Amino acid sequence: MLSKQDIAGFFAAEAELNLADYAIFEYIFECAEDPELAAASLCCEQSTAQWKRPGVDEDFRPEYGAKVISLEDCRGGSPSPPGTKSYRVRVAHPHKNFGPRIPNLLSAAAGEGPFYCPGIERIKWIDFELPASFLNQFEGPQFGLAGVRERLKVYERPIFFGVVKPNIGLPPEDFAAIAYQSWQGGLDIAKDDEMLADTTWSPLVERTQRAVSASQQAAKETGTPKFFLPNITDEVDLIPELYQQVKAVGAPMVMINSIFTGYSSLRALRRYAEVPIVSHFTGTAVFSRLPHYGISSLVATKLQRLAGADVIIMAGFGERMGCSDEEVQANVAFCLQEWGDLKPVLPVPGGSDSAETLPLVFEKIRHADFGFICGRGVYGHPKGPAAGAASLHEAWDKIAVKLS
Amino acid sequence: MLSKQDIAGFFAAEAELNLADYAIFEYIFECAEDPELAAASLCCEQSTAQWKRPGVDEDFRPEYGAKVISLEDCRGGSPSPPGTKSYRVRVAHPHKNFGPRIPNLLSAAAGEGPFYCPGIERIKWIDFELPASFLNQFEGPQFGLAGVRERLKVYERPIFFGVVKPNIGLPPEDFAAIAYQSWQGGLDIAKDDEMLADTTWSPLVERTQRAVSASQQAAKETGTPKFFLPNITDEVDLIPELYQQVKAVGAPMVMINSIFTGYSSLRALRRYAEVPIVSHFTGTAVFSRLPHYGISSLVATKLQRLAGADVIIMAGFGERMGCSDEEVQANVAFCLQEWGDLKPVLPVPGGSDSAETLPLVFEKIRHADFGFICGRGVYGHPKGPAAGAASLHEAWDKIAVKLS
Repeated sequence: MLSKQDIAGFFAAEAELNLADYAIFEYIFECAEDPELAAASLCCEQSTAQWKRPGVDEDFRPEYGAKVISLEDCRGGSPSPPGTKSYRVRVAHPHKNFGPRIPNLLSAAAGEGPFYCPGIERIKWIDFELPASFLNQFEGPQFGLAGVRERLKVYERPIFFGVVKPNIGLPPEDFAAIAYQSWQGGLDIAKDDEMLADTTWSPLVERTQRAVSASQQAAKETGTPKFFLPNITDEVDLIPELYQQVKAVGAPMVMINSIFTGYSSLRALRRYAEVPIVSHFTGTAVFSRLPHYGISSLVATKLQRLAGADVIIMAGFGERMGCSDEEVQANVAFCLQEWGDLKPVLPVPGGSDSAETLPLVFEKIRHADFGFICGRGVYGHPKGPAAGAASLHEAWDKIAVKLS
Repeated sequence: MLSKQDIAGFFAAEAELNLADYAIFEYIFECAEDPELAAASLCCEQSTAQWKRPGVDEDFRPEYGAKVISLEDCRGGSPSPPGTKSYRVRVAHPHKNFGPRIPNLLSAAAGEGPFYCPGIERIKWIDFELPASFLNQFEGPQFGLAGVRERLKVYERPIFFGVVKPNIGLPPEDFAAIAYQSWQGGLDIAKDDEMLADTTWSPLVERTQRAVSASQQAAKETGTPKFFLPNITDEVDLIPELYQQVKAVGAPMVMINSIFTGYSSLRALRRYAEVPIVSHFTGTAVFSRLPHYGISSLVATKLQRLAGADVIIMAGFGERMGCSDEEVQANVAFCLQEWGDLKPVLPVPGGSDSAETLPLVFEKIRHADFGFICGRGVYGHPKGPAAGAASLHEAWDKIAVKLS
């Protein structure tokens, strides 16, 4: 248990810190006892748990300790458990404790410190900020929003994605035939489902080869670029070889499920990829869904941009995805805003969408810089995938008329 | 919304399936409406979301669909939200949908399917089983419990680990000096804290070199093996090089924070490592802590053994770690039980332990096949690290006397 004096060593005035040396981690937490003790413990446990050697006159806290720079009552959100109160805390953590490395940053911000902290009942890591000199040590997106638009030559409307369905079970030839129909109908990008990767019954390279070939045919016929997006999610040491193989057969983009490969694998891919990278959100809800526990989806979005995703498919609007409109809007806005030298990325809020939901999604975004993604909305269309894809353009044209 | 007939296509009698073709995923979930509809949706969304092409007479469910093989009311655990009930469901998922790949298995079992499933309010993935022919496609631990014991020549007592403290801020020379004292006092393994990796102020290779050298000195003096365990957690594409560097200066084991590197990186490391691998649990609580949401720590333990950890440091007993005794006991037991051809591993349940808590931990485990890990319990000992380490032996000797 920290004494009053111990606690003081984990507090600092923001104005007195050299902020270039600190990452700022923001949490909400619930505690039943003294919030200052809880917040100091949070800092203690995520940095210099024992800040001196017994019998040595020293104190590692000034240089290496994480420090509370603000602590306030937090109203709103879901009610706290009986007997507890909610607090919002901002912690300044010396980034030299971990360096510009995602797994190490996460070990400090979301590891044993915060999530096994004495005196804290529940905690959610809701945001972080990095000083420019540290932020710019991450490469960030190679192509970003502008690069993706240039490659597709689509500038003034949302980019239309389709997740080929049936997502599991189609042989490569049938898969490519369906994708082809959707490109003919006007889709920009036909993609693998996040659950479909390199399987015995649909080998990734064969599927990619057939789909890319179909996309080239569709591009020739329609006079517009058509992309196939293969899912190269696999064991992380096999991803580089899979990348080379799909690249060799013409893949113009690649996708990984970055939660399950780890965000660091996304960054590793970014270091050698020569095409845009799409990061898929699958798995995010495991830690982001609950209002007072886990890690926010905004943190997830920031980490993916940090790691170099050019396109971020995220849980979008609508009841199924369990996100508030404000949460999705914040994620979309973050993708597009300035952030050090890291390029803006294309946000793709998704979830059981179709031509019918496009006006609703647009109402919430109010601009065209997003990707719109459908599975059953295109490939389950009663008149087939071409009609499904065409229905997206028709829906957008009605919006565009109102806009102009 | 699935029709009654649609729902039936996602149910199967366990006896009628060829179980060698299926992974079994077990969940508890809460729903307000028809649990059969919710369970069928869970299977639908995690496999063949759209199981046929419009206008084609086909059905992918028999071959590729996940199937409910049992569904029952689930009593116990924390109370459900008002208006909902808890159910336990076992799902047979065709493993050829993902293959022997951890990120792809996770994309099916813990991805968008279960965690964005219509009709399910909260869900926790609590366990999985794999048929032997599929399980044995994972390499599993290279050395395992027996290999670690042989290397340390410690056979009939717990293995004593110490986390060098102060964990953040010590220069390599002082770090090695403190580790040396703890080895002299009887510690088997002195290790980096999970938050300490390769930093500018304590470069990994320099720290490892000094600590290994000190361990060799201590081994000579005490006549028993002494190990230094460096934390090579870093960006995943840098881990192979860091591994080679610490191996070159004599590291006898290595540690990674496998949640934040990804379990797949643990498996990648397993493929080339020539020394035992220690997997650290930091980050697990983010998804395992809550009783009715997320992923259980047992699933985490199983995934680490699948990925090839020889030693699993896990959240242990005691109030701080927020785990029930039964949860820790189940994780410890799983490490040691038979599981296909995959070797048993050393469980290290940890959390603010010291000589004082060793009898309590032993009471809950009732055998000596575990690692006992202390930070402040050794390095914060008022008489110094050697006395701290010696206190563990003294505490164990009292237990051993009672045992014999």
